[in-house]
This record gives sequence, structure tokens and C-alpha cells, in this order.
Amino acid sequence: MSPAASADARPGAAFIDGAIVSMDQARIPILDWGFLHSDATYDVAHVWNGSFFRLEDHLDRFMRGMERLRMRIPYDRDQVRRILIDCVRAAGLRQAYVEMICTRGTAPLGSRDPRLCVNQFYAFAIPFAWIADPAQRERGLRLRISTVHRIAPESVDPTVKNYHWLDLVRGLFDAYDDGDETVALTDGRGNVVEGPGFNLFALSGGVLVTPRRGALEGVTRRSAIEAADAVAVRVEQRDLPADELRQAQEVFITSTAGGVMPVGWVDGAPVGAGGAGPVTRRIRDAYWRMHDEPRYRLPVFDHAQQDA
Amino acid sequence: MSPAASADARPGAAFIDGAIVSMDQARIPILDWGFLHSDATYDVAHVWNGSFFRLEDHLDRFMRGMERLRMRIPYDRDQVRRILIDCVRAAGLRQAYVEMICTRGTAPLGSRDPRLCVNQFYAFAIPFAWIADPAQRERGLRLRISTVHRIAPESVDPTVKNYHWLDLVRGLFDAYDDGDETVALTDGRGNVVEGPGFNLFALSGGVLVTPRRGALEGVTRRSAIEAADAVAVRVEQRDLPADELRQAQEVFITSTAGGVMPVGWVDGAPVGAGGAGPVTRRIRDAYWRMHDEPRYRLPVFDHAQQDA
Repeated sequence: MSPAASADARPGAAFIDGAIVSMDQARIPILDWGFLHSDATYDVAHVWNGSFFRLEDHLDRFMRGMERLRMRIPYDRDQVRRILIDCVRAAGLRQAYVEMICTRGTAPLGSRDPRLCVNQFYAFAIPFAWIADPAQRERGLRLRISTVHRIAPESVDPTVKNYHWLDLVRGLFDAYDDGDETVALTDGRGNVVEGPGFNLFALSGGVLVTPRRGALEGVTRRSAIEAADAVAVRVEQRDLPADELRQAQEVFITSTAGGVMPVGWVDGAPVGAGGAGPVTRRIRDAYWRMHDEPRYRLPVFDHAQQDA
Repeated sequence: MSPAASADARPGAAFIDGAIVSMDQARIPILDWGFLHSDATYDVAHVWNGSFFRLEDHLDRFMRGMERLRMRIPYDRDQVRRILIDCVRAAGLRQAYVEMICTRGTAPLGSRDPRLCVNQFYAFAIPFAWIADPAQRERGLRLRISTVHRIAPESVDPTVKNYHWLDLVRGLFDAYDDGDETVALTDGRGNVVEGPGFNLFALSGGVLVTPRRGALEGVTRRSAIEAADAVAVRVEQRDLPADELRQAQEVFITSTAGGVMPVGWVDGAPVGAGGAGPVTRRIRDAYWRMHDEPRYRLPVFDHAQQDA
């Protein structure tokens, strides 16, 4: 191994070409259309205190995404689950961010026909990471509503989780220029839809509103909706106009990368009384309590049947 | 090297992490956001009879794309040119497809801030490939106008060449289902814009029309416009309604991967008299003649100054 490679050494483990490897060795062919055409779908689950959380929901969406993109891999759902467990075990991580990926693969020499590609499955487990750092989770993120439009459902199906992020990255850089920390994109008709890796919720007139269309159907979004139900807060899935977000009493984002996280400012103006509001806190607490429910947990390290 | 790797051996050479490698070894880190967020720009030039064609135009666009995405690499334009030449020489290819790529790179552990990524430069030279095979270049491609919309300029700037292809791939599979061979996407307002890797031209009322907006500013498109001028055919860059494409006397596509190639059918109906029409043939011939013009040629194998 070269000195450069060991300086880059990262915690984690990956599944590449049928084998578990270190993150240093986790590389994909440059000719894979998953890279050259972003022709791929993926999902991210997390491991918390040694157990996967709602892994089956992530697997549901991942299998459905592959089907919609007309991709096939030589592993069934049980084998994919097993590979993800193997990655987390090899990484030795009790809090992990676990990504499963299916790409179109590489075309035969000279061909440009995606039907002739051999689809590829990759996965990796790395340390759990948060969209918001500890200070931001306390005071709330500074969020900017972008003039950039999220890629439309008429172009790319947002319910198939994908890597088309150049619109989100463009909005993010604009937000940084304005002194903000993250961004929400709109649908081009004045409604906010989602941000880089997260769904949006606004408490408006006592009701929690989350966009219904043009956004990923996030698993953490679903958990937040269920958590709201558990703490008796009504949720409406409908268009969320940017102005309604600006005037909301509370705003939070949801992501596998951190769960339920408060927004403290929208377009530079404070949201409500600042920090995480009372409804956001109740939903956040309920979200983390869900991690103890056996129906959502899959232990990674002491799961006897997995060793069979 | 494993038997699997040598079975995959492909002609070509790549530049990865500062070194020239074989295509078998041409792999990028799975954590590079060029893959995980498709946060990348690229360009493709071709080598014909041992010389690059219009390489400076591709370099212009590539350097501009990096700037718009706020990316920086440790190589200046002269060094990038030199790396591309080195790839072609290492590959030993006299007709080559040469791709240069800049990605956002990998974020520091735990960070999701693209400003903290170290941008990466990759390149590869592989055998020249055509969008249309010899039979298709003779009889013309069967093209379908898709109901899928091309990703809008309000979301992703189409003049920054990018890997956001899921809309194109979706349209392509639909076209295959209909018995067609390729696809043109629209802007959602009834105008065709581009297809997977190519620009569109239609001969309509004696004038060549090519979309003005929502499409890549292709270098081969520019060559075709100049070639049209050379053979005294007027060109209009404007919206191209789908119906006008359906009723055109001639239709052709342009791409670095094959130059000027005729379309023989649109939505199942033959275009004009079929095959490559007279205007298409004149422009195609003029395009290939341009390859002999010294101002567009950069010899790869006998370019003394490059060996200095």
C-alpha cells in the first residue's frame, strides 16, 4: 500500500465485486455507468447502538428502485441484508451509515445499450454522520429557500432514490454565499420540496405540513409522521408554499443522517422562538424512542440466525 | 490479478490519482461525490487518424464547467492537454474516445460540506465508439420522441456537461419498448431538446433547425453548424417543436461519438425519402473533411513539442 493510501485510511468496510474490503480499497470501475451516467439507485440505512433501524423499509424501497430502473443483481433480498450486516460487522461500528447501491454497470466494448450492461451491487458501512453538527442541532440550522428548482418528477422519478444532486449542490453553494448552512429547493411553482438529503416539515397553524410531491419518500420522514401521530400532532401531506415555510411556528428536517433536526432560521429570519420548538422536540424524542422498538430493530452483532 | 480481472481486460489507458494505469485498474473511490452525488463535470474529445479533433474547444468547455461548479484541480490547461495525450499514447489508439473528468472528490470524515472536498481529475482513452452502428448510419436511426422531459435548465445547467442521465435512460428504455433505437426528450413545452449524448438537427422548409435552449452546446453541433455554412445551408438556432421534427425533410444527430448521423424514422414514420438525405450527407462529408484542417488537429504520436 502506498503512503498516500494509508494517509487516506478511513474507518468502515465495503462490499465490492463480491468481497468485503477496507474503505481504502473500496473503488468502482471508472467505466461503470453508475458513475458515467449516474445510472444508479441506492438507499441508506443506519445502525444505532448495534442494531439496524427500519432496515426492511430501506430494503423495500431499494428493491422497488432497482425494478423501476430495470436493474437486476445476483443477490436476493436476504442476501443483500446479509451483505449489509457483514459490512457493519467488518467495520466494527455500533453507530453506522450503511449504503447499498445498484448501478447499471459497464457496457460491452463499443456498445451504448444499457440493456447489455451487467448491473452491479456495491455496499459500504462507515461511521454514522449527521447533517447538522451538535451546535446546529441545538440552535437549529440556517436554511435558505433557493431559486434553483429541484429536478422535476417529469424528468427523474424522485421516489427512486438517486444521485442526481447538481441542483442541490448549486442551491447549497448559493446558500453558503448568503451565510446560510443548508438549502431547500422548490418545484418551480412556489412550493418547497426537499433539501440535500432531507425532507422538510413545517408547523403551520398547529398542523405539521410536509410536501406531498416532488420529494423522496424518506424513511425518516415516515418515522416522523408516525412519531407525530404518537404525540397527537396532526400531519398534512400537501404542497408547502415557500411563504408558509417562512411563516411557520416550527420547521424541522428529517434524514437518516441525523433523524429529526430543527431549522432555526429561514432566509435569515428566525423561526418561532428559535432553537428546537416544543413540537419538534417531542417528535425528535419519539423518533429516537422508536429505535428501541423490537419491530424496527435488527441487531447486527448478536443476531444468532445471521451466523447460521 | 484474478482471472475475473483479466477476462475483463479492455483496450485503453486511464489517468487516476496522478498516474497512467490500464483500464482494468481504472477505478475511483466509491466515496467520491462525483459518484455519490453525481457532482462532476466532464468532456469527451476524440482522436481520429492519430490526431485530436478540436481539442481546444473541449478544453474550453471543460475548464468553464469546472469554474461554474466551483471546482479546482492541481493541473492547468496545458497539463490537462498533456495528460490526455499521454493516455492516448499509452493506449496506442489512433481512433480514440477520450474523456476528461473533474469530480467534487471525497469529503473529510463526517462532513457533508462540498467546500471541504478535494476535487479530483480523472481521464481515460478508449477505442472510438459510435452512437449508431454501420447499418444505422446507412439507413438512419429509428428515433422516438419521449414523454419524459429533459432535466430543466432551472435545475441543472445543461451547458455544464454532466452525468445526469436518468431522464435519458428512462426515455431510452421506453423507446426500446416501442421498437425504436434512440430517443429525443422534450422541454415539457412541446419542443425537442436533445437525446442521450447527442444534439438534434431538422431540415425544415429548406432551413436546418437545431434547439437553442435546454441542450448541451455540443462541439460536434458547432462543427455541423460550421459545415452547414460551408455548404451554403442556412441554420436557425431556435425552439424545435416535436411536430416540426416529425414533419422534417431530413433529421440528423450530432455527437463526438460518431459525428453527424442520420435519423431515418421519427415515431415510426419515415423521414423524407429515407436513409441519409442529401443535405445530411453534404454536412457529414464536410464534417469529416474538417478533420484534415490543421487548425482543428493536434497530432498525438508525432507532436515534437509535446515530447520536450
